Parts: sequence; structure tokens; C-alpha cells
Amino acid sequence: TESCDQSPIRLPEVPPSSPPIEVLDVDKKTPDGWLPRDPRLIRLTGVHPFNVEAPLTDLFNEGFLTSPELFYVRNHGHVPQVQDEDIPDWELTIEGLVERPFTISLRGLLEQFEQRTYPITLVCAGNRRKEQNVVRKTKGFSWGAAGVSTALFTGVMMVDLLGRAKPRRGARYVCMEGADELPNGCYGTNVKLRSAMNRDLGMMLAHMMNGEMLRPDHGKPLRAVIPGQIGGRSVKWLKRLVVTPDHSDNWYHIWDNRVLPTMVSPEQSANEPSWWQDERYAIYDLSTNSAIAHPAHDQTLSLDVLQKSHCFKGYAYGGGGRRVTRVEVSIDKGKSWRLAEIEYPEDRYREASPRQMCGGTLDMTDYEASFCWCFWSMNISVSDLSSASDVLVRAMDDSMNVQPRDMYWSVLGMMNNPWYRVAIHQEGDSLRFEHPTQPALMPGGWMERVKKAGGDLTNGSWGEQIGGDNEPQP
Amino acid sequence: TESCDQSPIRLPEVPPSSPPIEVLDVDKKTPDGWLPRDPRLIRLTGVHPFNVEAPLTDLFNEGFLTSPELFYVRNHGHVPQVQDEDIPDWELTIEGLVERPFTISLRGLLEQFEQRTYPITLVCAGNRRKEQNVVRKTKGFSWGAAGVSTALFTGVMMVDLLGRAKPRRGARYVCMEGADELPNGCYGTNVKLRSAMNRDLGMMLAHMMNGEMLRPDHGKPLRAVIPGQIGGRSVKWLKRLVVTPDHSDNWYHIWDNRVLPTMVSPEQSANEPSWWQDERYAIYDLSTNSAIAHPAHDQTLSLDVLQKSHCFKGYAYGGGGRRVTRVEVSIDKGKSWRLAEIEYPEDRYREASPRQMCGGTLDMTDYEASFCWCFWSMNISVSDLSSASDVLVRAMDDSMNVQPRDMYWSVLGMMNNPWYRVAIHQEGDSLRFEHPTQPALMPGGWMERVKKAGGDLTNGSWGEQIGGDNEPQP
Repeated sequence: TESCDQSPIRLPEVPPSSPPIEVLDVDKKTPDGWLPRDPRLIRLTGVHPFNVEAPLTDLFNEGFLTSPELFYVRNHGHVPQVQDEDIPDWELTIEGLVERPFTISLRGLLEQFEQRTYPITLVCAGNRRKEQNVVRKTKGFSWGAAGVSTALFTGVMMVDLLGRAKPRRGARYVCMEGADELPNGCYGTNVKLRSAMNRDLGMMLAHMMNGEMLRPDHGKPLRAVIPGQIGGRSVKWLKRLVVTPDHSDNWYHIWDNRVLPTMVSPEQSANEPSWWQDERYAIYDLSTNSAIAHPAHDQTLSLDVLQKSHCFKGYAYGGGGRRVTRVEVSIDKGKSWRLAEIEYPEDRYREASPRQMCGGTLDMTDYEASFCWCFWSMNISVSDLSSASDVLVRAMDDSMNVQPRDMYWSVLGMMNNPWYRVAIHQEGDSLRFEHPTQPALMPGGWMERVKKAGGDLTNGSWGEQIGGDNEPQP
Repeated sequence: TESCDQSPIRLPEVPPSSPPIEVLDVDKKTPDGWLPRDPRLIRLTGVHPFNVEAPLTDLFNEGFLTSPELFYVRNHGHVPQVQDEDIPDWELTIEGLVERPFTISLRGLLEQFEQRTYPITLVCAGNRRKEQNVVRKTKGFSWGAAGVSTALFTGVMMVDLLGRAKPRRGARYVCMEGADELPNGCYGTNVKLRSAMNRDLGMMLAHMMNGEMLRPDHGKPLRAVIPGQIGGRSVKWLKRLVVTPDHSDNWYHIWDNRVLPTMVSPEQSANEPSWWQDERYAIYDLSTNSAIAHPAHDQTLSLDVLQKSHCFKGYAYGGGGRRVTRVEVSIDKGKSWRLAEIEYPEDRYREASPRQMCGGTLDMTDYEASFCWCFWSMNISVSDLSSASDVLVRAMDDSMNVQPRDMYWSVLGMMNNPWYRVAIHQEGDSLRFEHPTQPALMPGGWMERVKKAGGDLTNGSWGEQIGGDNEPQP
């Protein structure tokens, strides 16, 4: 089917969006009782605040771009309510260690600055945290593997705003503050000024997502979008940028979004605040990660049909703009690996000529970094699957950072990225596939099963008894 | 001892250098027969060409900065001989997709451009390759863990040169060519233009090293120095920069400095050239790595003295300017980890006020990236050591890339960075420490020993028989 578009490049399609129109019963008695939401989203922290991911299959099947209604949400409190008529007057202040501090309305941002559009994948630092929680309870709630979503974001480049404000010598950070009201103040954190001033790193303040105004859960009317870094840096309901010599002292910057050394226990982290003061443990770039989306958890494959092979599929992403250069799959517990096919839909935008899109200029012809997820796939023969006990996947980025076999457990349970493992069970005439976990408190997955059976998930063999080739010699 | 220096910051000292003055017998019959060298260096490719590393202990004991005579060397052929009187007339050409191509003499580089000095660690992509070769022979020769060295480099920033030449739209790479004459042409490769134009990434053309003229083995009179990337990008005896839309087609760019997927065998890589055409497998950034330097290989520790603990020490580095944020040590095969102390001598330069040093301006007050190795240390009690069978070390960078337990074998044997393991042997009243390998063809190390005894080095337990806690349940 030929596109009407003049361009020979087929850009990924924006998924059909049907904005929710009814407030769900479950939300009615919360401070967000005015806000319609999609009932498919899986709630990870009870009813409120709203922290959700889509079912992994639904997310994956939407394709490269995620609809705003299935895009993951991480809220720390209730959602700031902004009436449409007040949006043009929403004010953003840029101050601190700058020569020309200024306050500008959203109308001003639209009128006075160039609008750019980029596809950007956001990922919660807690993506895949449920796996850590099964090994040992962390201080974080249980994300599955769908804490990742992609959209076309439109807005103003942070470098353009900072260029007008003119940071002074000695400035090193850009602190950001949102409008949410939380027990410990607003949500805030920082990015590094040098990264913000680097146009290639694509940091922006966005007001649109897939060509429509931001929805309330995604920061309406204005948010930061920080490509390649953890979602926690992309501050929503953005009100203030403060250029500073030191890192943010916001409560959430200090006590969240860190990977403390693995030997620090929850008790130690509570009793010894110095662990939280060491900026070396703050997370910026995402780490290399991947997951299997198809087959889904508990999906079965009948062996009595004439299907010779089954196609495994999933996603992968890198951090800091680094491209995923390979995805490898093992069906013999990591002894040998096969090379998966990788599709990079982000590259379609690079290949396309510059154009207006979603209210901004899309021009990625000179843009080297990879800020979006990619998709891998591999056909595995049914006979191979029948004799395998699991399928493992790992990705590597262009700095040769490969996902490790071993989990790096830490007290906040962030950046979990060991090999993603789906166990295979032969049951009569079919194979059943079992993912590591299910999100939130949903039961299921081989990790809980193995742990309940007394297995040690940290024994280097996914808690299984060691046998076969690894059996000790007499 | 108080320094005469006005500054309260103690900068690392340049190690005393005694330039070799005699041509070694071993070199006399080679094309490098005119070139005096240090006899301590370990030759990794027979006599010629000259590819060497220092003994690890000697390298480590020199401290943060390495003397030119112990700095590792990677030569592909004979060393271009340049008389001192010809140095000012050495010509560099900048051409290709630029508005203003030009040729400039080294004299011109000194007179017309600002001279900068930076401490920079160079690392050969083959560092620690001997370990890969023991597992399975690669196409590369056997580096130990001393293919890493640090110096104060002085020269002109690449961004300043490119700024004069003015790259045109569509330019993406800076190809570099040296003056060496090799069977496949000169040595050449490329960096990415956007990285070269980013002053924060510190790419430079250097003519001095620790305040003295470059020595012949290190590129006299002019070389590229590319911080945070593999040594193979820092082209020596530099003659030409060509700005291009496509990557370098130099023989060494295509057929070297790549990490092919692990399942590609030497035979396959020879028969299927397409593996080498995929730029995704080219290496730029270094990967996170670390090693134990003290105790040295075969060092012993007497148990009958009143020494209560022993201090383990070593180095670590990250890639692409990423800081090593933690180094962890395990004495129970990775079940639990302890946090090492880390010293970052590079930070002393950051803290120092801007100054003239070694013939250039040293000003790192605004410089965020980490381009040098750092040093870790940890006291381990003798009683703990007596009951341990090995000491493992791993580093993590600020993007949470952690060294993996498993080796990623590839056909060229590059970027080897699994946990560094020293085995412990109790022998009578002392402990003996055994490193994984010794460089070149030198025998020794637990890897060869285990392999000879029939162990499978890829079994996830360093080839040891599995016992103890891992013993299968009945």
C-alpha cells in the first residue's frame, strides 16, 4: 500500500488514540477523581498515586509509538489540574546562575522559540524492578517490563532557553521543579548543564505528545523530556529551571533515583544517610536492557500442528544515546548465543527529509544518537524449543556494554538489567512459556515459583538445581 | 613535605624519566635498529613490529602518570624516522568535505593555535586479551593487563583545527592517516565528526607527552589523542585528516578494532566478509574495566608474621568519559561484595586553578568527563584470605555499566572485561596469589593451569569443579 506522502520513507504510524472520557470508579474517591484514564493500565501502587504500566503485550503490539493512554505513568502525588483556558498563561521561570533570568508563558514559548519534534523513548529507572523485589524486597514498587514507552514529543530545545538566559561561569547543573505538591515539597531533580547545552543530546521542554496536547498524567501543560536518561529526570508540570553550581537539593533528587552499592542493606541505607549524599550513585543514563514480549507470559504453543518454528520478539534500548548494536538469544543457558534481527524504526526519521510534524520541525538528518527503543526478533525451531528449558536474551550497546547474567541488586531496585529469561515447560502436546514475573502484586512467573520451592535465585543458575553439564566430577 | 608550588592542590608528579640511549641487541637487525628502547618492556609479537606492555607491577608503581619508556606501544610496522631538524616542517593536511582545506606545518600548529595540556589514559582495545586467547585462540596477540598508560598530552584541540577548515553539511566522520608504510597502506581510521567537534570530549593532536617531545614509538612528531576511546583511534605519525560523509575505508579500520558477535568463528569471519562491513561492530568507547596489580602474580604472603591484613590494589577505567563510580571486591565467588576505596588523581587537575603546564594551558575547572584511570584499594584480613579461594574485582561506571562475570569472546579478542580474578593457594605457612594469565607467551596463571587440567573455563565457575554451596541437592 503506497502512502500518499511524497516521501519514499515510511515513518512509523502514530497509533490510533482514543482518549479516555470516563473517570474510573476506582479513581473517584482520590484527588485525581476528575481525571479519565484507560482501564487497561496495571496499577503498581494500589489506587493512588497513579503509577502504571500497560500489559506488556498491549504495549508491544502498539508498535514503535505508544498512545498517550498506554504510556507508562510515574506520579508521586495527585495530578495538578490545569484548565485549558489557563494553559497559554502557564509560566516557566529560568533563574539562578544566569546573566538574564526570565519568566515566560507557554504562549511565549510557542511564539518566541523554534518548535522541534523528536521521537523519544522514556524508561522508568524501576523498569523490571519486580524481579529485584522477588530476590529481596527493595524500597521500590514492582514494575514489570513495560515501564518503557515512546512518543513524538514537540517543544522547545533546552539549549535554546538556556542560550537566552546565558549561564555564568561556574554553573554546572540545571535544576528542575514541577508544580506537584508533595509531602516533601515539589518533585525536582537536575540534569548536567553541559549535557543540556549539547544540542545532540536532545533535551527539550515539551507541550505535545504524538501531535496532541500533553495529557494531565504526562505533565500537561509542560514537561521536560530528557532522552537517554531515566524517566525520573523528565520533570512534569514544569515551573522552574534553576541554573546552579551544585546538584539539586530537592528531596527526590537525594533520596530517589540512585543505585547504591549492592552490599548496602535497607536498614543501613536508613541509618547511614551518607550513602545518599554521594553523587556518584545518582543515575543519569539508562543502562542497556531488553525483554521478550512474544511469546507472552503463560502463552502456549501446540506441538501437534505443522508449525516448524516460532518467532520470538521483544524490545531493547541503550542509555545516553548509545545504539543497541546486537541482541543475542540463548537456548542453552548462555553456553552459546544466536544473533537476532534488529529493526530500528527511529532510523526512518533520520532517513526522512526535514519536515513539519506534529507542530514542530522534525530534522534528524544530522542526528547521530539513538534515543528510542528498537525491536528484535528471532525464529526458533519448535524442535529446538522442545529440548530447551529456557530462552535468554541480552543486548549490547555501541560501547560494548552487555547486559550481565547476574542481577545487581540495590536498595531502591533500579536499573535492573540481567539477561531476560523465559522458562519453557512441556505440558502434554504443547509448550508453555513462563516470564520471570508479573507486574505489581500479580502472581506468576518462574522467579516466585522457584523461590517458593526453596531455590536460591542468586546461585547463578536462576535458582535451579545444578545438573547436567555442570554436574561435579567425582 | 610541602611543595614550593603556590597551589594547595598537589598534582600527580611526572615520573622521573630516563630516556633509553642504547639500541637493544634484539632490535639491531630490525627496521627499528636505530631506536633505543627500555629493556623492561615485554614484547608481545616477537621482536618486530614493536608491541609491548610494561610488567604490571612496574606500570602500577610508577603511579598515575606513566613514563614514555614504560608507556605501552602498539606498532603495525616499522617506526617512521623523523630527524629533529625536520620536525618543524612536518606537514598535516586537513581536507575532504570542508570549506577551507589547508596544509599546516608543525611550526604553524604551534604558532597559530592554542596549546592545551590534559592528562589522558590510553588503553589498547586488546588489553587483557591473553585471557580470551586461553579460552579460545583469537586473531590477536596476547596482551596482559598492562595495555593501559597515562600521560600529560600537549597539543591542539581537534575542534580548533576543524573550526578553521569548516566542515560542510553531510560530513559525519574525520578520517585520520599516519605516515607508517604497511603492507595494506598506512594505518588509518576515523572518529565521528560530532564527537570531534565536542570540546568536552577532548580530542587533540599532540606533539608532547609529559612535557617532552613525543618519542618515536609514540608518534613523533604528531599524533591524535582520543580520550575515552580505544587506543586504535589515536593515530600516530599523523599526516592527514579527511572529513567525509562515510566511515574510513582504510584496511585497518575495516579489519581491525571490532567486536564481532560472539558466535562468529575465526573461519566464518574469514569466509564471510560481510561481518566486517557492519559498522555497528566497530569499537569507539572503551568498556568499563579493572584489574588487580597488588599482590602481583606469584607473590606470597607469609602467615606466620603478625600482619593482620593485606592491602589489595589495582586500577579501573571507564569508557567515553564516564567515571568509575564504584569498585567492588568479592572473596566468595561473587555471592557478596565489599566496596573498595577509590582515588581519582585526575580530579586534582580539576581542582587546580588554570595554569601553564608542559607547554600548554591546563584548565579543567569546567571539564566534567573522566578520561583517566583511577586506583582502588582494599584491606582484606589475612584470616579472610586464608579461607578464600580467590579474590574477584569489578568496576561500574556512572551509566551503571558493570563488568560482567562472563567473558564475551570474539574473534579479534577485544574489550575483554569480565571480573578480574586472582586465585589464592595456601602453601604451608604462606598464601600464594595467582593472576589469570601472564602476557605474551609467558607461562603462568590459573587459566592455563585449569585448562590443562581439563577444566572448562566457560562453565561459569572459572573452570573449577562445582562444589560447596552449589552442590546439587539429591
